[in-house]
Amino acid sequence: MKKYFFLSSILLIMLFVSLSLGYAGQPAVKEDFRPASTNQPGRDYPMVNSEGRVRVQIKAPEAQRVQLDISAVKYYDLVKDTGGVWIGESAPQDEGFHYYQIWIDGAAVPDPGSMFFYGAGRWGSGIEVPAHDQDFYALKNVPHGFLNEKLYFSQITQSWRRCFVYTPPDYETNSKSRYPVLYLLHGSFEDETGWSNQGKVNLILDNLIANEKAVPMIIVMDNGYAFKPKNDLDQGSPPLFAFEEVMVKEIIPMIDGSFRTIADREHRAIAGLSMGANQAIRIAINNLDLFSYIAGFSGTPNYPSADKIDRDKFMNGAFKDGKTLDRKIKLLWLSLGTKEPDPFPGSVGAFRSMLEESGIKYGYYESPGTAHEWLTWRRSLCQFVQLLFK
Amino acid sequence: MKKYFFLSSILLIMLFVSLSLGYAGQPAVKEDFRPASTNQPGRDYPMVNSEGRVRVQIKAPEAQRVQLDISAVKYYDLVKDTGGVWIGESAPQDEGFHYYQIWIDGAAVPDPGSMFFYGAGRWGSGIEVPAHDQDFYALKNVPHGFLNEKLYFSQITQSWRRCFVYTPPDYETNSKSRYPVLYLLHGSFEDETGWSNQGKVNLILDNLIANEKAVPMIIVMDNGYAFKPKNDLDQGSPPLFAFEEVMVKEIIPMIDGSFRTIADREHRAIAGLSMGANQAIRIAINNLDLFSYIAGFSGTPNYPSADKIDRDKFMNGAFKDGKTLDRKIKLLWLSLGTKEPDPFPGSVGAFRSMLEESGIKYGYYESPGTAHEWLTWRRSLCQFVQLLFK
Repeated sequence: MKKYFFLSSILLIMLFVSLSLGYAGQPAVKEDFRPASTNQPGRDYPMVNSEGRVRVQIKAPEAQRVQLDISAVKYYDLVKDTGGVWIGESAPQDEGFHYYQIWIDGAAVPDPGSMFFYGAGRWGSGIEVPAHDQDFYALKNVPHGFLNEKLYFSQITQSWRRCFVYTPPDYETNSKSRYPVLYLLHGSFEDETGWSNQGKVNLILDNLIANEKAVPMIIVMDNGYAFKPKNDLDQGSPPLFAFEEVMVKEIIPMIDGSFRTIADREHRAIAGLSMGANQAIRIAINNLDLFSYIAGFSGTPNYPSADKIDRDKFMNGAFKDGKTLDRKIKLLWLSLGTKEPDPFPGSVGAFRSMLEESGIKYGYYESPGTAHEWLTWRRSLCQFVQLLFK
Repeated sequence: MKKYFFLSSILLIMLFVSLSLGYAGQPAVKEDFRPASTNQPGRDYPMVNSEGRVRVQIKAPEAQRVQLDISAVKYYDLVKDTGGVWIGESAPQDEGFHYYQIWIDGAAVPDPGSMFFYGAGRWGSGIEVPAHDQDFYALKNVPHGFLNEKLYFSQITQSWRRCFVYTPPDYETNSKSRYPVLYLLHGSFEDETGWSNQGKVNLILDNLIANEKAVPMIIVMDNGYAFKPKNDLDQGSPPLFAFEEVMVKEIIPMIDGSFRTIADREHRAIAGLSMGANQAIRIAINNLDLFSYIAGFSGTPNYPSADKIDRDKFMNGAFKDGKTLDRKIKLLWLSLGTKEPDPFPGSVGAFRSMLEESGIKYGYYESPGTAHEWLTWRRSLCQFVQLLFK
């Protein structure tokens, strides 16, 4: 009896050691994978475990090599089972949303199990790694606003454009109320769908408004890419950027004409992420008659430089007279993820130093444990909108 | 000189013959391919030519076999060039919208060049083959309505659901006007995104309203799948279908509460495609106090049977007293594509015979040259909405 107990103990210890280390001495993968919240309806894969590992599965019986490509730098080899199904997982990922794709014999394709998102210049797979603070963007039993999609023709760019507009839960029922407006800009290689699909802007606002942590507001999400048409002689010249002009002359008048807005600078904010942060700060500083609340998430107009900013020259000296500028701005607000790569910490830091030297007050937030990704921006939005229009 | 001319002529004739027949005597493919309108921004492939052939291209240098899979029945082998890029095209397709996918060494994946659509039970690639009458759903310089997206919790299904609502161009500006409502249902293995993404409902209505061919109306597109939760003992039993109850008790009151509707049966229509046609006709006939306009596109409640309908038994005898029913219905309207496969022509035909025997008047439309696909339903919608609320 004692002998059996001793043998069982040895076996149990061996089992424990092998589970802990896995094969070939690698750290064991925790087998608590669950389907990702970003999956297509009814799909079990991709999955995520409590360590943040992403496991994918795809049937490709004739393939020689299948890999998971996530976080832009790592390729993870999948292993084929006897049924021709490839399976494998990544190293632990940061909490939050990540773009990814699958390589099949040298072809980069979306994972047919995931929903698709526009980012990195393409519609492709994305996956949600549950975050410890995901409650603030969870779908809850609170009143929900509408997300309104509008097509319009831009005379400036001579092209069709699309705008998404969030209206707060009481917008339809309080048919006399007027609302302040936040213009919210996406990043480079993203588009007007980013803030609602990846950014969860409607859920963040629905939750904050339900808890009276944010005032009901309208949020406008347009496309930050806008170029004037060139004539035939100009074809070789650089693109004619026109987003500021489209924003000021077309988007704002359209929104004020179609929605019950409070159409003055005290009730108009502009914010953006990365490229959109650069745009938001520039547009606001150039148009202080239109905006009084300004935010840049993971970006500033001196991007990508980390050099000390020359206030006499930067943005045509807009920050030279800091005191006057400070009086005109109700709130200037910046944010960054603690794991952001170069050049973001350097360039945001140089911009902050310039503000401090100029005597311009600003708010600042750091998203813990996140890089240049959507959880940084969801958290930044959640922090920023609580300060608006109060 | 003459000799050269003669040789050149021979070469030209050979060139012409080879271009006309292609290799191995196959009919030549017309080389007038252009990027599809359904492509991701900036992508050249997939392409469509004037014959309706779909040409795809994908880099897969290590793959052994790559195929295009379109129209559910055909696999077209692609050919690899020296750079590892596979290319090839389908036979001519019907005009209109088609789902498709690519097979890479046995893996079925979306084409990373196309936009993605929900149909056939998955988000995947779709392609638009230009139609001779595509003008009616073209994006034009006319006033455009909004597409509004709303999340709501259904008490009946104990689940979160999503609803898309089209409001006509003058809805925001005529802030006192009230509007009639069309409830528009998708088909099986589709969802609430189908009618706006593949169906182009907003563009069809914008164009018709601009030309005063349709009255301004609100169009509601919800998800036709709705099931009551089961308790633990019921798990093996069939699903508890609840869409009619959700429509009557939750969706209609929500829409009448959130939008400026004319909330009576004279100003409420219901229509659907395929499975949604079956649902629309059943829901309307069961709730004639709510609806007076009814349409089924490519579907009827006797699906999939083509047998003669027994009016005493069919839908609990709802069509038995045809004259009374006929007086209550303002418009009953059916449609079908001329190329629809079995069982649709048979079952729609049997339903029409039953209506005729019952003395129930109905409108009927056939979409020329289209099968059980979205161009049939775009055309049907365009025809039907012109008859509504007049």
